[in-house]
Amino acid sequence: MCDEISPNIAKEISNNVDNFLFDCDGVLWNANEVIPGSLETVKGLKALGKRVFYITNNSTKTRAEYAEKCVKLGFPASEEEIVCTSYISALYLHNMNFQGKIYVVGNPSMGEELDRFGLKHTGIGPDPPDDNQAGLQVVSGLTLDPEIKCVLVGFDKYISYPKMMKAASYARQKDCIFLATNEDTHLPMDVPFVIPGTGTIVASVKVPARREPLVMGKPETNMFRCLQKAHNLDPARCMMVGDRCNTDISMATNCGMQSLLVLTGVSTLSDVETYKASGDPTQATYVPTYYANKLGQLGKLLGFSIP
Amino acid sequence: MCDEISPNIAKEISNNVDNFLFDCDGVLWNANEVIPGSLETVKGLKALGKRVFYITNNSTKTRAEYAEKCVKLGFPASEEEIVCTSYISALYLHNMNFQGKIYVVGNPSMGEELDRFGLKHTGIGPDPPDDNQAGLQVVSGLTLDPEIKCVLVGFDKYISYPKMMKAASYARQKDCIFLATNEDTHLPMDVPFVIPGTGTIVASVKVPARREPLVMGKPETNMFRCLQKAHNLDPARCMMVGDRCNTDISMATNCGMQSLLVLTGVSTLSDVETYKASGDPTQATYVPTYYANKLGQLGKLLGFSIP
Repeated sequence: MCDEISPNIAKEISNNVDNFLFDCDGVLWNANEVIPGSLETVKGLKALGKRVFYITNNSTKTRAEYAEKCVKLGFPASEEEIVCTSYISALYLHNMNFQGKIYVVGNPSMGEELDRFGLKHTGIGPDPPDDNQAGLQVVSGLTLDPEIKCVLVGFDKYISYPKMMKAASYARQKDCIFLATNEDTHLPMDVPFVIPGTGTIVASVKVPARREPLVMGKPETNMFRCLQKAHNLDPARCMMVGDRCNTDISMATNCGMQSLLVLTGVSTLSDVETYKASGDPTQATYVPTYYANKLGQLGKLLGFSIP
Repeated sequence: MCDEISPNIAKEISNNVDNFLFDCDGVLWNANEVIPGSLETVKGLKALGKRVFYITNNSTKTRAEYAEKCVKLGFPASEEEIVCTSYISALYLHNMNFQGKIYVVGNPSMGEELDRFGLKHTGIGPDPPDDNQAGLQVVSGLTLDPEIKCVLVGFDKYISYPKMMKAASYARQKDCIFLATNEDTHLPMDVPFVIPGTGTIVASVKVPARREPLVMGKPETNMFRCLQKAHNLDPARCMMVGDRCNTDISMATNCGMQSLLVLTGVSTLSDVETYKASGDPTQATYVPTYYANKLGQLGKLLGFSIP
């Protein structure tokens, strides 16, 4: 097993970690309810001079919108401290000096982040009725735009057969960049039905394209790589705090960061035992450095005032 | 390598095989063009007293519609000789005496085959506008129908986010049967864009449901099992003729049939070599018993008059 945090471990963390990366849902809050002790811990770490970043796979908010959500719940956050997949996708294309046009299967926040970097794209929302009609004929008069050299897929509630057809047709071209914000299969919500996540939308493009996209979100490493570059971070002095072993903790391991699993969200200690016993190299990346029942436990051990 | 058919092999086939199962596209015809020699071979086999069946993963035609297509191209075919996934899905539910209601992601031919067996289902086509609107709200006022105990997914050009949400919600329920007609990723058509196949639609339901459907089509064995039951077939005296190793030939191997690969469609001899050398047990099922450059080669060796 990995170790539960103790007074000694908390001291070590305090000495050796300069940058804390927080997954949000299941760590800082659940839905819109702050998890008790999380607020004080984040504020306490900031007061100690630690850098704090909020890392989310969510592709439906811009950095500004996500910072607003943090602040509304009481967490000190500026746009520069937010790492979300809509922003990282746009930054990735900007960093590579992408000059073509992007076919986007996405949402308004993704469009906004692309616009902020001046990246050309096909727009957001339902397909134009004519295209939609042509696509529904299946073998149709659709024409491909030769300017398009990238397909970017994120959460899109207007996903349709014609969009799948167009996105897959572009993504199938060898010189086309194929990006996905993340591959979460569903949204973890307390409702009696399944809310399909971005992984569902991505599957509907990658299956016909017969090609895997480059994924920006956790457990892939691109989010951290962009952050690392922007802030000159040393992974050895970073700690990822998360509630999901197969996304948050796996990304930390893959980036050479320490990790802390909190038990206020998806993963359990028995999951960790299973991963550790599996002997599978992928599952080995799911095992955190430390665990805590909740984030407030770290705050308490560091002497912050936790009510 | 597997053997190319020879005069001796053709004689053996003629002696030992009573039932010929033909994949159609790539074997009998390409798009709407009959492959020279195929017509005469099928007719010749029938004249020898062999039984002939047409086996297609296509879920967008009823048996009657598919028989009509065969006849239009000159192939002797009655409804009883057609095995298509819309029909097999309905037959599968009929055979198990399914009494609930079926949530269908599908097309009119699937609806027709279900109706013919008197199976209750939710209907075909775009989602009702109210449901669609509710689904697009993502966390919505959608209610699940407790009568629904089966999700059946086939080709559906009206696939939408609300449909994915509903289908996945039902399929996620443990007592719900989850069927897919087939999982072909795309339609093999000679057009400059990708036509997403039923596998794309299935992925958009199984990813959020986090569950694998029971697949009716090739390479799974359900199509043959239904045919076997209906006609009391001995697999050892059946031969599957196909152009795709990973569907047609794999199903034949999995069912204990002999198989003949024809090189007029998707798979090549070099594919066969790769599968044979792989040492992978799945790929081992892709290796046919025999191969022929085209179906007409068998007819010629059997002494049929091939122009």
